[in-house]
Amino acid sequence: MLRVRPQEVNEAIRPVFDDRDKAAAIDKGRLLARGLPAAPGAAVGKAVFDADRAVEWARANEKVILVRPETSPEDVAGMYAAEGIVTARGGRTSHAAVVAVGMGKACVVGASEIVVDEHRRVFEVGGRIVREGDWISVDGGTGEVLLDSIKTVEGELGDEVTELLTWADRYRKEGLGVRANADTPLDAQRAREFGAEGIGLVRTEHMFFAPDRIPIVREMIMAADQATRRIALEKLRPFQRDDFIGIFRAMDGLPVTVRLLDPPLHEFLPNHKEYKELIETRSRLEALGINPEEQARLEAIIANVEKLREANPMLGHRGCRLGITHPEIYGMQVRAIMEAACTVAEQGVHAEPEIMIPLTGTVGEMKETFQQTKRVADGVIAETGVAVKYLIGTMIEVPRAALIAAQIAEFAEFFSFGTNDLTQLTYGYSRDDVAKFLPKYLDMGLVPHDPFSVLDQEGVGEMVKIGIERGRSRRPNLKIGICGEHGGEASSVEFCHRVKMTYVSCSPYLIPGARLAAAQARIKERQVGGSGDYRV
Amino acid sequence: MLRVRPQEVNEAIRPVFDDRDKAAAIDKGRLLARGLPAAPGAAVGKAVFDADRAVEWARANEKVILVRPETSPEDVAGMYAAEGIVTARGGRTSHAAVVAVGMGKACVVGASEIVVDEHRRVFEVGGRIVREGDWISVDGGTGEVLLDSIKTVEGELGDEVTELLTWADRYRKEGLGVRANADTPLDAQRAREFGAEGIGLVRTEHMFFAPDRIPIVREMIMAADQATRRIALEKLRPFQRDDFIGIFRAMDGLPVTVRLLDPPLHEFLPNHKEYKELIETRSRLEALGINPEEQARLEAIIANVEKLREANPMLGHRGCRLGITHPEIYGMQVRAIMEAACTVAEQGVHAEPEIMIPLTGTVGEMKETFQQTKRVADGVIAETGVAVKYLIGTMIEVPRAALIAAQIAEFAEFFSFGTNDLTQLTYGYSRDDVAKFLPKYLDMGLVPHDPFSVLDQEGVGEMVKIGIERGRSRRPNLKIGICGEHGGEASSVEFCHRVKMTYVSCSPYLIPGARLAAAQARIKERQVGGSGDYRV
Repeated sequence: MLRVRPQEVNEAIRPVFDDRDKAAAIDKGRLLARGLPAAPGAAVGKAVFDADRAVEWARANEKVILVRPETSPEDVAGMYAAEGIVTARGGRTSHAAVVAVGMGKACVVGASEIVVDEHRRVFEVGGRIVREGDWISVDGGTGEVLLDSIKTVEGELGDEVTELLTWADRYRKEGLGVRANADTPLDAQRAREFGAEGIGLVRTEHMFFAPDRIPIVREMIMAADQATRRIALEKLRPFQRDDFIGIFRAMDGLPVTVRLLDPPLHEFLPNHKEYKELIETRSRLEALGINPEEQARLEAIIANVEKLREANPMLGHRGCRLGITHPEIYGMQVRAIMEAACTVAEQGVHAEPEIMIPLTGTVGEMKETFQQTKRVADGVIAETGVAVKYLIGTMIEVPRAALIAAQIAEFAEFFSFGTNDLTQLTYGYSRDDVAKFLPKYLDMGLVPHDPFSVLDQEGVGEMVKIGIERGRSRRPNLKIGICGEHGGEASSVEFCHRVKMTYVSCSPYLIPGARLAAAQARIKERQVGGSGDYRV
Repeated sequence: MLRVRPQEVNEAIRPVFDDRDKAAAIDKGRLLARGLPAAPGAAVGKAVFDADRAVEWARANEKVILVRPETSPEDVAGMYAAEGIVTARGGRTSHAAVVAVGMGKACVVGASEIVVDEHRRVFEVGGRIVREGDWISVDGGTGEVLLDSIKTVEGELGDEVTELLTWADRYRKEGLGVRANADTPLDAQRAREFGAEGIGLVRTEHMFFAPDRIPIVREMIMAADQATRRIALEKLRPFQRDDFIGIFRAMDGLPVTVRLLDPPLHEFLPNHKEYKELIETRSRLEALGINPEEQARLEAIIANVEKLREANPMLGHRGCRLGITHPEIYGMQVRAIMEAACTVAEQGVHAEPEIMIPLTGTVGEMKETFQQTKRVADGVIAETGVAVKYLIGTMIEVPRAALIAAQIAEFAEFFSFGTNDLTQLTYGYSRDDVAKFLPKYLDMGLVPHDPFSVLDQEGVGEMVKIGIERGRSRRPNLKIGICGEHGGEASSVEFCHRVKMTYVSCSPYLIPGARLAAAQARIKERQVGGSGDYRV
């Protein structure tokens, strides 16, 4: 049980290139080069030829593959930002290979047929030219570099891994539960297949981004007053309710933690690049003196983006701050959750909603949002006459919340540590900007790991411990989970076990590894305890 | 000693309108109206007529005066952003008056001659029209509202206050020291006159903003490589050295804490509004097909701004992160500080430089910057042959730094709590964006104070206590100060005394109040201790 590494069981279900699609691409002559397979993984992205460009495009949410003659420490930020790395020179102990393995990025090195022309931003291979921005696919397990975006497919657990995990679950029984972060019924279903015992995080905002909803979301955001906003919200409610119905059905009999709206509203408006284009288009129309209606339309959008613009959105008007200044938004969401739960309950499905308030930092916020939520939820139960049991809890992701956890637990019926934000705030690092210095820090050995991948037990971990101790001092049986991305990383899972969390929650694809890691944590604990009794 | 409020002694030196300038303005018929003096203070700014505009302009660093028919809770964000508030209606217990007193904003209410036309964004008074953006001055002590920007002058301590503070200093001897935050020789001189016992914070970046330096700073930032950057830095060094010479002379015999560069580099490039204008101008030129050289020039500036743009600059590439990725910047600054100290020491001035590293969060950063700094400083001492004693210390402003303070104190020879940033990170609040929800929170009673004005003893204060205990566990005599704006606020000063800081540091104008508050903290402590011995 201790010999298998949790990453290994996850690798079984890691997406790989679809064999047929790859074979078809090779048939069509899309295989560009074959180098040394330096770090496994199937990566797809747009070719870029320098680290700055990689960082810049990744920040604009483009997937990129960094292609270099060879890499050096100056490239580390770009490697970090890229999906995969290709070098023309170097072997398996080259800088690129070593760094990519450490980062878990797909990497092919020594693809010597490739000639990179950084200045012209192209590479040549066998007479063909691949330009910056062209899609390429990298198979770090075989060393192949292909033109175009090759389809990827999910792996399967297989019988041996399934049996291993059944043993693991037996050891784990006295330890951590394992839940999934899932935003759709499909994700929930998949998570359950991989062994999830509930959902630890449904990000309701992900539902807002669907193409049929984003115009209504924008209507809601740009509403000039509360009445207009309520009309837009009423249009969103059926969508949200239907999503929740699907998720509750998929998780029949298991708890589902739904987080109310978390990100700042401007995330639903045009992004920086689009905003810049809006300004450019309007200025051109203005200079040419044409199309005044279009100018006015663009001007209105620009004004709305400006109004919502924040200097530091991560630290701005988001999470429960939004829920308190705009109670109608959380009101709609709570109503949708409870209507869904009552609807499926009437059909014989056992729904266990756990409503989660994000970004709480003061007891005033907790009390206010708890009371608002309870009022709406109890209202739906009274209307429908279906007595669904539900919990109201909170994320602990602001350092202050960990410090005053005893007071927060006065209201909150469960905690979930949002260690992504907690890491950002404990270090003062913006995850979106960290590529400018963190790769250098890793390179110089100033930090042992990327703290967004591996939980920093010394700093962030102490905040977690403080939060758990103080929360349980007020409410001894407080259910406590983690829903940051650390919930799927083995050493972090072991930490969660040691500090006596109730469960970890992670991406569906990390569930198998988390099950094994949690079992291993329990076994190691017994070994240290010296009981020698391994029967479970 | 306990009866006088620390704010009261500060009011003695608070800037007031220059009598002659105000009289001249009144002679010229600039007095617009006289209302009720609701909250004292001399405020100057551009007239705005709604809260949104106030917030927006203030964010672009414009000083504004909010003029409203009357105020309601929806206006609170705008009041918070404004320098002063004027209302046409309402008395001394009106919403505007009560809120303004709480915020410490100059306020005139019930200026009934004023007719505000929100729609046209003007106000009329006695047949005159004042438009949005016109400068006005508000005397909250007399109720006068004047057109134009009236000059303000410093107040003076006066004999009685001076005597009171002499008594206070005697009580304070066993308690807190009081230092000033000062960036220029003039500020340092003034601080010394008000009783500062050293400088707790010189913000070196403020020197970078001077008109003769900003072009060189931009050259440094936009440098394509380290060699070019070093050339620009060498041009900056004499400026920095001369500033430090002036400050060391003014503070002869007293310690001067100099913080190395802290803000992200893009703060020295065009701001958001200017950036938008650059895009507009370039797009217009492009649309008209004229002036290609200018287009290219603008394009280059835009590209540089883009390159340095960060999603959350407060959490980004700044402080020691910049000092580590660009060691040549800190190298230049340390050299300038030590050259200045050695120069004045040769002239018989006693310089006590304390070099402070900002934003430390890991022991790796502390070790690296400590060693870099020591190498350069000792180099200057060896070159000049002048043995100036100096200390190397750090800000504690990232929660993680407080948690690992014992390790940091392995290297750091002093700590200074940067409670502005520590408040931002402990709460997860961006000070620049907080106006979107904090006024509402204050209004609803969800938080007792603005935590950026009054130190949050429960949350941020606990981080401070942890930092002090752990720092001194490694280095029992560690010198510890505070240099956030809380260092000048009475209840926060009392807290600093209780947790056994060495000194508080605040703006020169808050020094008298801090001296009194520190004395009061010591007296109260004795009363509680019950020794009854008030001789000092």
